[in-house]
Amino acid sequence: METVQNYISEHKDRFLEELLNLLRIPSVSADPAFAGDVRRTAEFVKASLESAGVDTAELHETAGHPIVYGEKLIDPNLPTVLVYGHYDVQPPDPLDLWDSPPFEPVIKKTAIHPDGAIFARGACDDKGQMYMHVKAFESMVASDQLLCNVKFLIEGEEEIGSDNLDVFCKANAEKLACDMVLLSDTSVIANDVPSITVGLRGLSYVEVEVTGPNRDLHSGVYGGAVANPINILCDMISSMKNENLEISIPGFYDDVVVVSETERQEMNEAPFSLESYKNDLEIDEIVGEKGYTTLERTSIRPTLEVNGMWGGYIGEGAKTVLPSKAYAKISMRLVPNQHPDTITDLFTKHFESIAPPGVKVKVTPHHGGHPAVTPTDTIEYKAAQMAMEKTYGKNPIPQRSGGSIPIVAMFEEVFGVKSVMLGFGLDSDDIHSPNEHYGLFNYFKGIETIPYFFFYYNKLKQS
Amino acid sequence: METVQNYISEHKDRFLEELLNLLRIPSVSADPAFAGDVRRTAEFVKASLESAGVDTAELHETAGHPIVYGEKLIDPNLPTVLVYGHYDVQPPDPLDLWDSPPFEPVIKKTAIHPDGAIFARGACDDKGQMYMHVKAFESMVASDQLLCNVKFLIEGEEEIGSDNLDVFCKANAEKLACDMVLLSDTSVIANDVPSITVGLRGLSYVEVEVTGPNRDLHSGVYGGAVANPINILCDMISSMKNENLEISIPGFYDDVVVVSETERQEMNEAPFSLESYKNDLEIDEIVGEKGYTTLERTSIRPTLEVNGMWGGYIGEGAKTVLPSKAYAKISMRLVPNQHPDTITDLFTKHFESIAPPGVKVKVTPHHGGHPAVTPTDTIEYKAAQMAMEKTYGKNPIPQRSGGSIPIVAMFEEVFGVKSVMLGFGLDSDDIHSPNEHYGLFNYFKGIETIPYFFFYYNKLKQS
Repeated sequence: METVQNYISEHKDRFLEELLNLLRIPSVSADPAFAGDVRRTAEFVKASLESAGVDTAELHETAGHPIVYGEKLIDPNLPTVLVYGHYDVQPPDPLDLWDSPPFEPVIKKTAIHPDGAIFARGACDDKGQMYMHVKAFESMVASDQLLCNVKFLIEGEEEIGSDNLDVFCKANAEKLACDMVLLSDTSVIANDVPSITVGLRGLSYVEVEVTGPNRDLHSGVYGGAVANPINILCDMISSMKNENLEISIPGFYDDVVVVSETERQEMNEAPFSLESYKNDLEIDEIVGEKGYTTLERTSIRPTLEVNGMWGGYIGEGAKTVLPSKAYAKISMRLVPNQHPDTITDLFTKHFESIAPPGVKVKVTPHHGGHPAVTPTDTIEYKAAQMAMEKTYGKNPIPQRSGGSIPIVAMFEEVFGVKSVMLGFGLDSDDIHSPNEHYGLFNYFKGIETIPYFFFYYNKLKQS
Repeated sequence: METVQNYISEHKDRFLEELLNLLRIPSVSADPAFAGDVRRTAEFVKASLESAGVDTAELHETAGHPIVYGEKLIDPNLPTVLVYGHYDVQPPDPLDLWDSPPFEPVIKKTAIHPDGAIFARGACDDKGQMYMHVKAFESMVASDQLLCNVKFLIEGEEEIGSDNLDVFCKANAEKLACDMVLLSDTSVIANDVPSITVGLRGLSYVEVEVTGPNRDLHSGVYGGAVANPINILCDMISSMKNENLEISIPGFYDDVVVVSETERQEMNEAPFSLESYKNDLEIDEIVGEKGYTTLERTSIRPTLEVNGMWGGYIGEGAKTVLPSKAYAKISMRLVPNQHPDTITDLFTKHFESIAPPGVKVKVTPHHGGHPAVTPTDTIEYKAAQMAMEKTYGKNPIPQRSGGSIPIVAMFEEVFGVKSVMLGFGLDSDDIHSPNEHYGLFNYFKGIETIPYFFFYYNKLKQS
């Protein structure tokens, strides 16, 4: 392993430079205007895999953005690790809140990242974390220390629901066959508190439209006599949580697995300062479902959040319009055993049922995803634990995350294997927000840790 | 009067062509990007007054858009009519709902306008109605039939609150001294049911901002634990009306003048078909304050409407963001004796008081305006009534409008005179909406009626 670590040390500058080039391509999968850039990013990743030492690298067309596949199969008797990542990024909006342009990466020191962090959309989620694997792989190959077969599966639609990855995996289950999936798209508690994600929330994401009159009206001439779709949408959204902030969609909690008191207690022992949390967000009070702590609210409890809402006149100044339509994007995070299709269905039925006279409503489902929980008594988890202990000098804490990576449940279903979520980001890295960043410490710590994972995984598998 | 009407008949084509040219200039007062176009429009109006025959025409600078003034004073013994109008227009948004570009007027026939209507932003509100006065004036001057002194006061900020007109009128009260104000910025019930507006609602317009966390957050990582400003704003807006759709701001109704049963009964005798109303708007049900009819809800009762709301991700596709901020533009229509400043103040205090922990709120007042009621037993009203009876062949119905023209109350305060709202539009003309239009019938009917107004006003004044 020493030769691998030496190789990494010697090539740090280039490893960083390459990532910055990758971050310069605006691979926003949600917006069709960026389709060309998304493709250029896929080609960049393919070329990176080739120069890192894969036997073959391929660009697979899909109904949406292309999937990059690469493999190096050294010995059929060795275990095969499928490395998953995504090269697409969230839209950078709102642009005016970025301190530097989202696709012109800059390195700046921060309180949390005294060694510097890369500021750019995708720096952490997931270009930075995905590219660690490419560079760790290169280092293992160059040092002649690759101890497992490796398959890379890097998609361009994670931020919009991975629908085509699903199709691709099902159609190529044999080609993608593996013993486990390794991915880095999660975070550690802190740079001195390593952790491994063992739970993910699922997701149901819908867009709703409320239509009142057939055209925008003068609010003086018609106001007071015709249902205003914005007011109505406010009423409808407001009614979907009760005074304890429980979600009032009938049946919403029916399938929720009740977490044991013991597990809740363990969970709440994780390092967490409510004061730091509030100070970081500049809020005077936390707000959430009654009877649960912040750590519980963001991991073992489902949520309903409005991610976007718009209607009427939203330009400069005043316009006295009673609009024809109002819209909202609403997402629900799900916990075991909630099924995204069931929840989307319950939401739709409920939303339609509470629509008052005077308006028509429409619900359009976006992507969904299953929740996932991974056990901590497996060889895969132990290999990750040992690798992190080696590079951090501390035993990592198993932790449930509030986010969703729907493909983890899909991999289990299609390939019959577990995933290890070996993430190196921080929750404070502002992924999905303006000024997303990724610590240089974290980037290189990832590149250093991954070869140890392969080393221990090979060792535990052989024993 | 015959020579005037003959002159109008002979110049119809040119009168129309000139209006179309006026409509081609996008004089959107609310958006600073159009400031140059607004000024070009003012210069167009000034030149039109000059060629129509005023003695002097002037462009007056203000802190905002310029005011056009013109006068023809023929005899100090004759009454002086101040003609008010505005050359600015509402923003054309949402642009994608227009069938033809808003600033490229086209003439199309419709069911209500079998002779054709001009489709363009400002066609009715107020360029078309204002320009009728310029052409009626030209016709009277050219026919040597001008029977009153005339002062034109045409502003460019009606759609954003007329703040600078207010300043200008107070500073130039002597120059603008008159016996009455005449304006056309309202509508008739139907082309075969003439009416005169005798009441206007006042206006309080505010913009609100709700701030949760100091930055946009990942809704998976933070969702469920941090107040979402969109959800909160929905709750706050929803709470501002009770189940009878009465506004729940404490003190909101305190100053409302209770309209007598007799007046309400008369009001409800105006021609109105609920079925046609619903069919026109394609709504299954009307929605409004309990205990009042549609005609009452849009005239003698105050309202609270969200004119615009936005927050979070409103682009294509899905983004799982818990936003930092949410915004709404909210207007309240007021009735006699509600004071716009009092209502804005009550709103602000209430909004601040209902803000829950976890968010900060900010209320920014936009323009306001006083409600107004004009009596029907005056010489001014009678002259308008006789003029309409002459050209429509029917006695017009006095009607209260739901809209607001705050300057009417201001004129009464500053000049000590009453206004006559001699409007020729239709409520179905889609003013403030996409596809605003103005009937050719209405445009020419206005030009024909105005000289009769001057004729009868002169006559009644002399007698």
